[in-house]
Amino acid sequence: MQHLLLAAVLVSIAGAAGAEEILGFNAAESEAQRSLEADFDAQLSKQDMDAWLKKFSVRPHHVGSTAGKENAMLIADMFRSWGYDVEIAEYEILLPTPITRELELVAPSSFTASLEEDSLPEDASTSVRDELLPPYNAFSIDGDVEAELVFVNYGRPEDYEILERHGIDVVGKIAIAKYGKTWRGIKPKLAGEKGAIATIIYSDPADDGYGAGDVYPKGPFKHASAVQRGSVMDMPTYPGDVLTPGIGATKRAKRLRIKDAETITKIPVLPISERDALPLLAAMEGAVVPPEWRGGFPITYHLGPGPARVHLKVKFNWETVTAYNVIATLKGSDFPDEWVIRGNHHDGWNHGAADPLSGLVALLAEARSVAELAKAGHAPKRTIIYAAWDAEEPGLIGSTEWVEHHARDLKKHAVAYLNTDGNSRGFISIGGSHVLERFFNQIMADVRDPRMDISLQDRRRALLKLNAKTDREKDEARNRADLRIYPLGSGSDYTPFLQHLGIASANMGFSGEGAGGSYHTLYDTYEHYSTWRDPGLVYGEVLAQVAGRATLRLANAPRLPFEFKGLADNIRLYITELEELADKRRKDIELRNALIDDGTYAAALDPTKTLGPPKREESVPHFNFAPLKNAMDRLQNAADAYHETVAAGAAPSPEVNEMLYSSERLLTRDAGLRGRTWYKHHIYAPGFYTGYGVKTIPGVREAIEQREYDAVQEQVELAARVIDRMSQRIESIVAMEAN
Amino acid sequence: MQHLLLAAVLVSIAGAAGAEEILGFNAAESEAQRSLEADFDAQLSKQDMDAWLKKFSVRPHHVGSTAGKENAMLIADMFRSWGYDVEIAEYEILLPTPITRELELVAPSSFTASLEEDSLPEDASTSVRDELLPPYNAFSIDGDVEAELVFVNYGRPEDYEILERHGIDVVGKIAIAKYGKTWRGIKPKLAGEKGAIATIIYSDPADDGYGAGDVYPKGPFKHASAVQRGSVMDMPTYPGDVLTPGIGATKRAKRLRIKDAETITKIPVLPISERDALPLLAAMEGAVVPPEWRGGFPITYHLGPGPARVHLKVKFNWETVTAYNVIATLKGSDFPDEWVIRGNHHDGWNHGAADPLSGLVALLAEARSVAELAKAGHAPKRTIIYAAWDAEEPGLIGSTEWVEHHARDLKKHAVAYLNTDGNSRGFISIGGSHVLERFFNQIMADVRDPRMDISLQDRRRALLKLNAKTDREKDEARNRADLRIYPLGSGSDYTPFLQHLGIASANMGFSGEGAGGSYHTLYDTYEHYSTWRDPGLVYGEVLAQVAGRATLRLANAPRLPFEFKGLADNIRLYITELEELADKRRKDIELRNALIDDGTYAAALDPTKTLGPPKREESVPHFNFAPLKNAMDRLQNAADAYHETVAAGAAPSPEVNEMLYSSERLLTRDAGLRGRTWYKHHIYAPGFYTGYGVKTIPGVREAIEQREYDAVQEQVELAARVIDRMSQRIESIVAMEAN
Repeated sequence: MQHLLLAAVLVSIAGAAGAEEILGFNAAESEAQRSLEADFDAQLSKQDMDAWLKKFSVRPHHVGSTAGKENAMLIADMFRSWGYDVEIAEYEILLPTPITRELELVAPSSFTASLEEDSLPEDASTSVRDELLPPYNAFSIDGDVEAELVFVNYGRPEDYEILERHGIDVVGKIAIAKYGKTWRGIKPKLAGEKGAIATIIYSDPADDGYGAGDVYPKGPFKHASAVQRGSVMDMPTYPGDVLTPGIGATKRAKRLRIKDAETITKIPVLPISERDALPLLAAMEGAVVPPEWRGGFPITYHLGPGPARVHLKVKFNWETVTAYNVIATLKGSDFPDEWVIRGNHHDGWNHGAADPLSGLVALLAEARSVAELAKAGHAPKRTIIYAAWDAEEPGLIGSTEWVEHHARDLKKHAVAYLNTDGNSRGFISIGGSHVLERFFNQIMADVRDPRMDISLQDRRRALLKLNAKTDREKDEARNRADLRIYPLGSGSDYTPFLQHLGIASANMGFSGEGAGGSYHTLYDTYEHYSTWRDPGLVYGEVLAQVAGRATLRLANAPRLPFEFKGLADNIRLYITELEELADKRRKDIELRNALIDDGTYAAALDPTKTLGPPKREESVPHFNFAPLKNAMDRLQNAADAYHETVAAGAAPSPEVNEMLYSSERLLTRDAGLRGRTWYKHHIYAPGFYTGYGVKTIPGVREAIEQREYDAVQEQVELAARVIDRMSQRIESIVAMEAN
Repeated sequence: MQHLLLAAVLVSIAGAAGAEEILGFNAAESEAQRSLEADFDAQLSKQDMDAWLKKFSVRPHHVGSTAGKENAMLIADMFRSWGYDVEIAEYEILLPTPITRELELVAPSSFTASLEEDSLPEDASTSVRDELLPPYNAFSIDGDVEAELVFVNYGRPEDYEILERHGIDVVGKIAIAKYGKTWRGIKPKLAGEKGAIATIIYSDPADDGYGAGDVYPKGPFKHASAVQRGSVMDMPTYPGDVLTPGIGATKRAKRLRIKDAETITKIPVLPISERDALPLLAAMEGAVVPPEWRGGFPITYHLGPGPARVHLKVKFNWETVTAYNVIATLKGSDFPDEWVIRGNHHDGWNHGAADPLSGLVALLAEARSVAELAKAGHAPKRTIIYAAWDAEEPGLIGSTEWVEHHARDLKKHAVAYLNTDGNSRGFISIGGSHVLERFFNQIMADVRDPRMDISLQDRRRALLKLNAKTDREKDEARNRADLRIYPLGSGSDYTPFLQHLGIASANMGFSGEGAGGSYHTLYDTYEHYSTWRDPGLVYGEVLAQVAGRATLRLANAPRLPFEFKGLADNIRLYITELEELADKRRKDIELRNALIDDGTYAAALDPTKTLGPPKREESVPHFNFAPLKNAMDRLQNAADAYHETVAAGAAPSPEVNEMLYSSERLLTRDAGLRGRTWYKHHIYAPGFYTGYGVKTIPGVREAIEQREYDAVQEQVELAARVIDRMSQRIESIVAMEAN
């Protein structure tokens, strides 16, 4: 009775929103922590964030640029001024920048692409062009080619299957692909594998130009001259400096020769604007594209090949530049050897207001507030490391080199890595290691939407409820206590932490209401951001509240807030998906083969058109998923046992906390994934043929998707084994703490 | 044993394709009939059809035009020359033709729409403009209005729901709607009901212009200047002459005053081209349209209202013109009072090569061949009436007036009505009374595709197999012995026969491979047709084979080939659909109301945008479908009994044949449908708010769809009663023949 009474009192003290005990804190500790967080919030200033955003975005500041270095030094100064120990971690990295970019239509008419973005009178920043990198795709090889165009839609594997059904291949041709649907680097990778000699990537106005909404400066969408820059390095093989895979690109590191760097593209690639793309596409003939391939130009799209013939020449300065990571450390008062790392990159492709500065200024605001708390006697119990990464844009290079360089220490000391990148507004979106699902749900429940009087969790749940399509989605949106956090693929600096080292990681941001077309273009300016994306940085401040809570709770929790029931439930879902994937493919292929064999395709297709039946495909064998399911059941039991017997218990020993935070490492294997050994994590990886998009239990999933059926069983065993290791760890903790 | 042996012999004689006994014929009769059909086919000449197509399409030939009358007389001459008794059935009908058509953008910029279609050097017909009717919508009222534009997408009920969620209405505004998705007449009808003062209908290039494929003359799709003409008469209320509903528009018929004709629109309406629409849409502002509303123009589409403001003036010559139906009769040798009617209209909006002449020339070829057979001693046993209708385009007027005029005789004598209209190529498509499902399946199995060595039925089944989405569709495509024939809504001359009189009807044509954008435009020429649609009239000849077989079998069958199992199976499907419709709406509304009530919409929608939550809606009560299901079971039993005990029996008495062919009448009620008494059929009707699209069991379905829940139960009873009457008829036949 006394106990219940106490709980009731605490509830009323903590208030409605924060009634629940924080994972890893007891009731009294929770109250203290929430009080600390209120102080933390009070020090955040969106006005300062806005001023910083303006200041850092005043000039183009890519890695290797004057402004990039100056920004890094300014950031370092800020951290120092707040009391942090600051190191500038420098790496010498290969960075190709354009010398020559030429693209001409040479037949049947002639046109020379401008390859330039317009300065706009309405946006002064677009006239600030010192050291401006023109539109290009970093890590394209040099090339000088001329050939007919083939339109490959988004350049995905399924797009080539349609072309094949039309009797069209890209051998010796130049593939022209739309941006979108898949990470850009996949487009030249796959086109090259299919025999194309170059790839042009353009932004179709249907996707993020006038088709999507009013274009800049009238609205947020892509200006006709805008070009999305971006890396085409083969990041799904390994990110970071192309010459130093697996090791830090220090001055004296042993480097590959450029020609041996397997993440540089095999064919030249150039991104172009809507304005430059239209004359090329309008000059194409051949079969009319399938309805779902149409874009937003006022033309009939054709597949080619030709008669549009283009000459493409790109030549790059393959230069070594210095990347400046700013590493700011605030030593933990109680557990200095346990590191909570919080990062955001500082380099942009141009002015980079949204990407990355909108996230970086949240990090800076957090860091200042944390420092203020420390000065007021509330130093974090664990060490907090703030990182402002350089060279993220060309391929997560700054973070990857630092992680590779400090791999041993990080494996030992890193509790978690918390990432942000460009921010927008709308709904909180959190991806990460599923051991943090419960942890982040508490934070989402504690932080309120700045425009509506509801928690971030409630607002996101409303979105899920409204958008739910399947019965499972509807049921989950309404009834699942925790919202799922999405599994991480790639696309920002969490990748080396999570996927190379197995450090529990998360990525946070707001999205859903600030859509636009400025990404990686000249128009990602302060003016654009503060007009269209998050005016006044209202959601930027809330991002700082979210990321700040995550950092402080991880830093201060007596028991590290790792929780395994969410992990188990998500892995169960992934295993179900794998079974469904295999079953669906088997059924689809059997049905399709039957329709090929009985002449249905031949009878139903228009004999006057080029579209033929698909190719017959090998049937999908049945796989033994039992090892995964057994591993799953064991994990579930272990997670339940931890939850019921331990999680709410007293502060554990440091040894147990280390066992908790290092548990994510057990989901990795040193040998890495099949065909890409840099990627060690066996639950999360970017897709080898999708890029940023995640593949969960990637060994199994990709073996099925890529029709390497002989490899599936081994991958099932390997995945089961890492899950078993995690279970064993949890069982050990339970056993230790039960004693 | 002897019997089996005989059957085997017959099979081998009849050959593989035509092995089965023809419904209504015994084995020997089937053989004779098939032999007759071979002779019939031999007389068809696609060269002649092609020549006729060219001849009749040389000038614009709408009702009331010189060429229209001349074509009628030429057609009459042809019939006469082949030995038919020919009557020109004349009706005096109201036909508005344009005096003034003006459309200007008056703010924020100015633009005057040309409202003209270009003559093309590549198509000589497009320069033949004698008596050319310019683009207009027949039966728009006169009007002279100026107001802001509101973009209403396709102008369907659901489109207005979206506008309402944006806080936009059309009261006092001009609605601009895309052509497509719903019959054009619904657009001004609904816009008027919603308070708009005019409607502009335009052809979006995404739908049948450059977005769909290469445009004329490079390809078949809609030229930038092309305008789809068409009637906007409220045909779902009643078709035919607007002044003489229910009676023939003879010279002395009693007529309504124009102002009392309820099928004339309430607001003025004008169709325009892509070229004229672009400046209007480009001048609009307001919220950006939902993604699924976007069209193919290179602009951002906005909802308005305004600032685009237009002045629209239309004035018509409300003239009475003469419609010339050509009625050609070949008296039946055995049953002259049983009439098989076969029709196609002859009037076009312009040159009308595809619509209607491509179907008409098939009818003419059939008629000549039938006449040749008669001359060779194979006169049809029943009377065949060929009809070339006038004034179909402005509102099924020629056929409707004739049907109304001769209603009593037709109810008594008409065995069936067989319709064609514009033809294309690809897959046979047959809609009609379900009592003819088996009948038409035999024909589809007997006629072969002209390009592939398979039957029309097999080719269509291949299409269904390939396109099947749901499990039911997949199962049916593979396993249902007969392909379903689609239920008829409206859109051609079968409507008065089927829906006003209850004469079993069918509509036949090829489609699926001759897509284009010439429909009701200046570009529906011989040149367009013979280049893009059915070059050489290869499928035109096959259409004649199909329609000719249908005509000859109905004319010659000792037992009329009506069959009720197909009817029962289809009605069962419709009843299931009604139950699913009610259940789905109930579930959807409950879910949506819950999401409104619990604040989900408010929480999930972007507070900076205009889109608000939907309106709360009354829940759907549970209905008692038992009367329909009981009627259904009785029908199924009756159909089974007829099939098992009678259908294969000896030739029945004329009385039984009359009971068979008049059975469709029992599905009508003299009182007609609720709110539109002209429509008598209780299984098939065009949708009151969808137009041409069919609504099966329309009384029940539309009461549910239009939220008139109090009316549902009565409609269930009425539908059950007509089905019961059909069952009773079948039971009577079974009883009579069993004796």
